[in-house]
Amino acid sequence: MIRTAFLGLGAMGFPMAAHLAQQAQAQGGQALVWNRTPGRAEAHAEQHGSLAVALTDTAQADLLLTCLPTSSEVDEVMQTLLPHLRPGTVWVDCTSGHPDAARRQQETLAARGIPFLDAPVSGGTVGAQAGTLTVMVGGDAATLAQVQPALAFARKVVHVGGTGAGFAVKAVNNALLAVNLWAAGEGLAVLGRAGVQLGAALDVINASSGRSNATENLIGQRVLTREFPATFALGLLAKDAGIASELTQAVGGSAPVLAQVAALLRGAARTVGADADHTAALKAIEAMNDLELR
Amino acid sequence: MIRTAFLGLGAMGFPMAAHLAQQAQAQGGQALVWNRTPGRAEAHAEQHGSLAVALTDTAQADLLLTCLPTSSEVDEVMQTLLPHLRPGTVWVDCTSGHPDAARRQQETLAARGIPFLDAPVSGGTVGAQAGTLTVMVGGDAATLAQVQPALAFARKVVHVGGTGAGFAVKAVNNALLAVNLWAAGEGLAVLGRAGVQLGAALDVINASSGRSNATENLIGQRVLTREFPATFALGLLAKDAGIASELTQAVGGSAPVLAQVAALLRGAARTVGADADHTAALKAIEAMNDLELR
Amino acid sequence: MIRTAFLGLGAMGFPMAAHLAQQAQAQGGQALVWNRTPGRAEAHAEQHGSLAVALTDTAQADLLLTCLPTSSEVDEVMQTLLPHLRPGTVWVDCTSGHPDAARRQQETLAARGIPFLDAPVSGGTVGAQAGTLTVMVGGDAATLAQVQPALAFARKVVHVGGTGAGFAVKAVNNALLAVNLWAAGEGLAVLGRAGVQLGAALDVINASSGRSNATENLIGQRVLTREFPATFALGLLAKDAGIASELTQAVGGSAPVLAQVAALLRGAARTVGADADHTAALKAIEAMNDLELR
Amino acid sequence: MIRTAFLGLGAMGFPMAAHLAQQAQAQGGQALVWNRTPGRAEAHAEQHGSLAVALTDTAQADLLLTCLPTSSEVDEVMQTLLPHLRPGTVWVDCTSGHPDAARRQQETLAARGIPFLDAPVSGGTVGAQAGTLTVMVGGDAATLAQVQPALAFARKVVHVGGTGAGFAVKAVNNALLAVNLWAAGEGLAVLGRAGVQLGAALDVINASSGRSNATENLIGQRVLTREFPATFALGLLAKDAGIASELTQAVGGSAPVLAQVAALLRGAARTVGADADHTAALKAIEAMNDLELR
Repeated sequence: MIRTAFLGLGAMGFPMAAHLAQQAQAQGGQALVWNRTPGRAEAHAEQHGSLAVALTDTAQADLLLTCLPTSSEVDEVMQTLLPHLRPGTVWVDCTSGHPDAARRQQETLAARGIPFLDAPVSGGTVGAQAGTLTVMVGGDAATLAQVQPALAFARKVVHVGGTGAGFAVKAVNNALLAVNLWAAGEGLAVLGRAGVQLGAALDVINASSGRSNATENLIGQRVLTREFPATFALGLLAKDAGIASELTQAVGGSAPVLAQVAALLRGAARTVGADADHTAALKAIEAMNDLELR
Repeated sequence: MIRTAFLGLGAMGFPMAAHLAQQAQAQGGQALVWNRTPGRAEAHAEQHGSLAVALTDTAQADLLLTCLPTSSEVDEVMQTLLPHLRPGTVWVDCTSGHPDAARRQQETLAARGIPFLDAPVSGGTVGAQAGTLTVMVGGDAATLAQVQPALAFARKVVHVGGTGAGFAVKAVNNALLAVNLWAAGEGLAVLGRAGVQLGAALDVINASSGRSNATENLIGQRVLTREFPATFALGLLAKDAGIASELTQAVGGSAPVLAQVAALLRGAARTVGADADHTAALKAIEAMNDLELR
Repeated sequence: MIRTAFLGLGAMGFPMAAHLAQQAQAQGGQALVWNRTPGRAEAHAEQHGSLAVALTDTAQADLLLTCLPTSSEVDEVMQTLLPHLRPGTVWVDCTSGHPDAARRQQETLAARGIPFLDAPVSGGTVGAQAGTLTVMVGGDAATLAQVQPALAFARKVVHVGGTGAGFAVKAVNNALLAVNLWAAGEGLAVLGRAGVQLGAALDVINASSGRSNATENLIGQRVLTREFPATFALGLLAKDAGIASELTQAVGGSAPVLAQVAALLRGAARTVGADADHTAALKAIEAMNDLELR
Repeated sequence: MIRTAFLGLGAMGFPMAAHLAQQAQAQGGQALVWNRTPGRAEAHAEQHGSLAVALTDTAQADLLLTCLPTSSEVDEVMQTLLPHLRPGTVWVDCTSGHPDAARRQQETLAARGIPFLDAPVSGGTVGAQAGTLTVMVGGDAATLAQVQPALAFARKVVHVGGTGAGFAVKAVNNALLAVNLWAAGEGLAVLGRAGVQLGAALDVINASSGRSNATENLIGQRVLTREFPATFALGLLAKDAGIASELTQAVGGSAPVLAQVAALLRGAARTVGADADHTAALKAIEAMNDLELR
């Protein structure tokens, strides 16, 4: 039996760790959890039968999973844990991290005999709760094969390349989410100014070639309703789009549309607020077009 | 029984008219068809039991449908037909036309007692053959109610607003297709330069939040295979994105991403070729990134 | 002696008409002036010795100059004047108008035997006062040769092509002003966030390859001082950039950067205010970057 | 008397070092020069009376100036020289380098008691030959004051901030050059398609508000003449615009237009060729618009 520890019980991490806890119990064990604010770990233990421990105690796990806001927080946690880690433990980072950070972290841990996989997830809080997340993994394939059964929160696990490839694919995926969302907002704003009924327009687009996850699952539910429920923060999506831009620079690529949207999103995070839901980026488009999308 | 005439037997029109012909026969009648190149109309008659007629003879129909490359060709056909049209005939234009043209055409016909609906379709050649197209309609709702049963090629018909609204929604839908397609091409180009396996990356994106119709139904099937089958021409998609840009100007809107992609697409239609499949726009991205998406 | 009438005594027209008045007096005559708000015409007469007349009386002039906000206002004035105009009068439109409007207006007037030149100006209110404007003229070269001596407000008059070419060049010139201004704002915002002293940076740029009229004559004087004196309205610059975008569409061109900036400027005119000075567009960049350019 | 060594005798460095050599001789001394390809250093010695030396011998200088393609080459040279450098020597890097590299290099050298200034130049090969370059300097102001008299190639020296600020301003300046140049190319392409005579249009723009260094000194001389003389490589301008984009990311800025142009320029460097003159970027615009700018 693999003993797991899950670090970072945010909107995504909390339900993800619940699946680990459930699986551990089914095997007669107990999953370790840690959170910077300890109360949240204790709540997890109470609700899901995990064991809330001190940060350094998570080093006792065979499989250590992190799910933190950015690679910087992973760096910090790694610094603290480094003296306590044992060779053979596998570190799987589910953060939407930076490819450069992955390579640095992989090297740091490899020097201690600890394999590292960058393994960000997609599917949102709904997928995390349902245990139907998609995991995109960079790093050693054999290591992935070894730990894959323990990723109880996943429906689909895909090995996409060497260290950093998981973070790269996640950054690009989120950049595409950003583009598709922003462009749909622009398109609806123009239609709204032209007097078209937006609900009907969205209905048509969702049955047509212009549809995307953003038009199918976000704009109708979150924007036209004016609810903008804060599940995935605009500041974090802007960060991810920024990682995609940095990756583009790093590989000498040319991606004018991704670059433009990353910049507009950064701007929207400033004018609308970084803590708002990512769909609230469309409020910046509303201001530029002097209308409300409803 | 409504007698229909279908004008314009292109890649979309040919199978659309086949559904009209089939429905007419089921009702003991015969659908009229016309095409600029008469051979294509005769082939339709032979294959689908329609009746190939001269252009002016289509004026005998109760319901006249056009499906031509642009609003200019509709203008030409209308000029020729105008002296022959009878009050009460309904004109339904399935072209991906221009909202301004719709308003002009509606006025011209209204002066003769002929209602006009702008009714572009979405669903591609596959949907046209299967009779599962989505139709977005601008114009008088009562007129639509009257002719809707005759639209045998449609699975979903949505009234989106007054005259021109159908064309507006279609232009924006296609602009979103253009953005989603182009952005996905950029994202994959960056990942390709980063050494990520593109098939795996696309697989992940299609199970994640960045997915769109372009990633799900176009890039894997047409780009990564290097097949680029010419069903919907790049020049026509560039034209549609241009209509969306003109609409944006006309309503005083601000849509920086739609505007950029419309311009890039126009450029790609020049460097790659306007007759190539619309997915071949990504060859322009390949040139800018010095790699092939495969 | 050519008798002139000047219609439209705005920030530009008022001093332009003063040069006409002065020249007329030197030749023993009197220039006619008209303004929608008559008080402004009377003030002009008092200050500059012109003759304030009713709109229809301006039709008595040999040379009629218009300088109005957009081509729409020129259309209105032309509609009113049309029955009163005499063959042989030349109409010179100094408005920053639309190439399509020019062609329409030229045709309308030609049917009455009245030549039309589109002749927008550049140089700002300072150039208008000093009589050092640049005039870019579209239309018949011989007509220009005939009236050029009467353009007393100009230092440089350039014939750039057929009807509409003057408006086209003006629209592109202003689109370049918009791009150069906006880009400089972005660049300074980034430097400001990096802790660089903006006055020193601007000083260096103005001695380097990145300089433009915007960096040399606008940003130091209007933005860094936080004065934003309202001489040329943001809404009018956004209109001009929009004309350049429409022209691009009309000629099938591809101009992704002009298109983006036109859209951003339209958005800024909404969030900052269309009546603010055009340099106040940079307040939108400040909001996106959470800093003040000073 | 300060003994100088100049490393990197490229298109800019060669004439810059000539001014140092001349100044040294006037003071009875001799400037050291080094180049990766030694023949070029020997040619410099012969033409300008400098002394061509081995790389490690340049460490004997009191003032060491580098002018290399990118910060990577500076890193390499620094690695080799490090064991030979003496405390008190000042290192002035005139490369168009990266702000991050400046901070790293400054630290490395400070540990050895060697002050570092980032001091990129602007003015092109013409300014280098005339000794009229603008130098933008980041780092310690007192160190600059000490070495400034030795910068014989400069007409204007501006201290813009701490370490890295010089590179930052240079990157932004060149990004503005890129934007102004690219936008002017787009604008002329649109005018060309509209049938406007481009020489006349450029003449007008250069007397109007849309003018920039690019329209005044590059497009008429290099593009419309079809000469594209290779003085400043497109690949290097794309690199500089990329540094500005990375800086934007690093400081959390939002610069959609700079980002777009950096991406388009990177693409043009691929399709037109990185070694072509930077003005040849407009050939990419020509291809997108199917016309030649002449």
